Amino acid sequence: MIENLTEMGAKAKQAATNLAQLSTSQKNKILAEIAKALEINVENILQANQYDIKHTTGMEQKFVDRLTLDKERIFTMAEGVRQVASLPDPVGKLDQGWITQAGLQISQKRVPLGVIGMIFEARPNVTVDSAALCFKSGNAVILRGGKEALHTNIKVSEVIRTVLTAQNVPADAVQMISETSHEVAQEFMQLTDYLDVLIPRGSANLIQTVVKNATVPVIETGAGNCHIYVDETADLSMACDIVVNAKTQRPSVCNAAEKLLVSKEIAQQFLPMVADALRKYNVEIRTDQKASEILGKRAVPAATNDWDTEYNDYIIAIKVVDSLDDAIDHINQHNTKHSEAIITKSYQHSREFTDRVDAACVYVNASTRFTDGFEFGFGAEIGISTQKLHARGPMGLKELTTTKYVILGNGQIRE
Amino acid sequence: MIENLTEMGAKAKQAATNLAQLSTSQKNKILAEIAKALEINVENILQANQYDIKHTTGMEQKFVDRLTLDKERIFTMAEGVRQVASLPDPVGKLDQGWITQAGLQISQKRVPLGVIGMIFEARPNVTVDSAALCFKSGNAVILRGGKEALHTNIKVSEVIRTVLTAQNVPADAVQMISETSHEVAQEFMQLTDYLDVLIPRGSANLIQTVVKNATVPVIETGAGNCHIYVDETADLSMACDIVVNAKTQRPSVCNAAEKLLVSKEIAQQFLPMVADALRKYNVEIRTDQKASEILGKRAVPAATNDWDTEYNDYIIAIKVVDSLDDAIDHINQHNTKHSEAIITKSYQHSREFTDRVDAACVYVNASTRFTDGFEFGFGAEIGISTQKLHARGPMGLKELTTTKYVILGNGQIRE
Repeated sequence: MIENLTEMGAKAKQAATNLAQLSTSQKNKILAEIAKALEINVENILQANQYDIKHTTGMEQKFVDRLTLDKERIFTMAEGVRQVASLPDPVGKLDQGWITQAGLQISQKRVPLGVIGMIFEARPNVTVDSAALCFKSGNAVILRGGKEALHTNIKVSEVIRTVLTAQNVPADAVQMISETSHEVAQEFMQLTDYLDVLIPRGSANLIQTVVKNATVPVIETGAGNCHIYVDETADLSMACDIVVNAKTQRPSVCNAAEKLLVSKEIAQQFLPMVADALRKYNVEIRTDQKASEILGKRAVPAATNDWDTEYNDYIIAIKVVDSLDDAIDHINQHNTKHSEAIITKSYQHSREFTDRVDAACVYVNASTRFTDGFEFGFGAEIGISTQKLHARGPMGLKELTTTKYVILGNGQIRE
Repeated sequence: MIENLTEMGAKAKQAATNLAQLSTSQKNKILAEIAKALEINVENILQANQYDIKHTTGMEQKFVDRLTLDKERIFTMAEGVRQVASLPDPVGKLDQGWITQAGLQISQKRVPLGVIGMIFEARPNVTVDSAALCFKSGNAVILRGGKEALHTNIKVSEVIRTVLTAQNVPADAVQMISETSHEVAQEFMQLTDYLDVLIPRGSANLIQTVVKNATVPVIETGAGNCHIYVDETADLSMACDIVVNAKTQRPSVCNAAEKLLVSKEIAQQFLPMVADALRKYNVEIRTDQKASEILGKRAVPAATNDWDTEYNDYIIAIKVVDSLDDAIDHINQHNTKHSEAIITKSYQHSREFTDRVDAACVYVNASTRFTDGFEFGFGAEIGISTQKLHARGPMGLKELTTTKYVILGNGQIRE
């Protein structure tokens, strides 16, 4: 089957026109129905998921684990939909308003983006999450998931679409591409007549492919190579706790720490401390020359490309730096503009670090793991933007909207 | 000469790091020096400009006019730079701030985008405008103008760069690409390692080329196919004034009206009125079947592609519509999402039009010509965005910035 993306796009655009006019309470009611339907259809979804798992070949166990659903995970997904329903609706909010010299009354009003394209990899919960967030913010969505979860994704989207139809909302507000070929992906990334934005979620590789091939505007998400810099004035016990937390609390995610920079003034004292603490979690340590001299056999030498690598694993690379300036330069050269932290007691150093490090989130004395829509208090998250246009950092519902200027006059013409 | 864009990009990035740390008063002082230098160098700039004009061949007179500078135009450019200096600096403003459940103090702070790429056509004033706006917002800029104005642009950028050096700011904050080949343009649009955003200014053709070829994030600007819908309840005299103003006050710009939609209930009465008024400005009228029946020989039949054409000229196409719904559908199908107006006395129709028309700016009872950074009160404008990401509508200094989350903790780790 070759999918007709142009037709899907046109249907999505039509559906978006309807969605933009729904009231918040209508949207919340439908989201509640979707949550209920996911719970009712738990057996059907599990069946589709088991089919997907049976047909994966040569996949690493950790990826199979991510792909695998059980009753509890589906109920968690449904609960997530209810949570999205409970969030404030950004649509219709006025960002600002004023009267111009010509006497025009201008208001800048939040409106949905229109049609959102999502490209993502195996996790089936992304389907439900994305559909709920796009729906709540008044957008139609076209989803393109990985082939490993295809049947699960199709089943989940069918459940959602059935609810939409029953609630007199166009089912095409949520569409899943069922063809996983490269050609279809390519066409999808260039569907400029219908897609207002494309959001890739997944590996650095996936995201780079989308950035390189898309003509639709893209929001880059999720590539992380986060650093923690331990300043010579740091509380070393705090620094140790933060490094261990940022590295090991969940190493597979983009806000985990991948690199540790340590001031030479305290390296002799701090490195053995932190190495001992990391060893309890079986973290592999890779070191530059100076750190090697201190840690010896507790570490292995880092290669040049280590400084640009996102491990997503129990690995950390450590470098001893001469000064705050060196730390900032190293970070600005190697980071992915995601999340960076300094551990310090110095007022001056905290200001210089936060002013000069170029990243979506810069921390003083806290773990980089807090870069997250829920931790920020947004209630939900569609991804973490590492680009500078439109949205930077955790993206919630507001970031799925744009604005429209509404201008009220009484006959004004321009002189 | 083949330019080394990678080197230019690296220098721009380095310069951007410096610019981001300049205080508002430092930036304003330098802008004042740039204005002065433009006035002092008026003869040199005119010489370069005359060289450019002498070497244009086969160019339409109106384009030669746009390209031609005189003393007054250069002084106006300098005055524009002083105006930019007088505007509030968006950099460093806090958009919001709050404390999270974990006790982290988060503030969202405005910071420069970094390095901005501009691709534009003949008008040399764009060089000065863009350099001033980018500089004030703390961004480095790499400019790529049209070949017709090459020597003028190079001279102007030299004047600016000399001031920067004299003021101990890296001259590479403002760079002009001097190679106008297609290959260099292509490479420029894909300079993702160095450019944070690319802003094309010029014809629809130029903008489409950039959107199709760029891998750097693009902000689309300026394509206009603006409609005025005259509702059956309209004050017809007001409607007539607004149509004439929106069409003829400056037909070459993107916020000029290109299409007139008229409710069938008042077409018989209104069309002859507006045709007479437009004829005084020698506006050519192109009509659909129903409007033809009313206007007869005062108009010529519109072709199908007229409804999608931006004339930028003394031409307007007129269509009689059955209802408000028809008008909205026609606009949403054919507009470029720029500026759309309804002329009405009906509260209900004004709400439906502004809610349902998809455009950056929707007007009730005013001319579309007000879509403009100056008219909006932004004090300056780098373009009018017709896309939905990052910025929509007139873009001032704020739209040349992004945000950074600064997160202050006291040892928080994630549970």
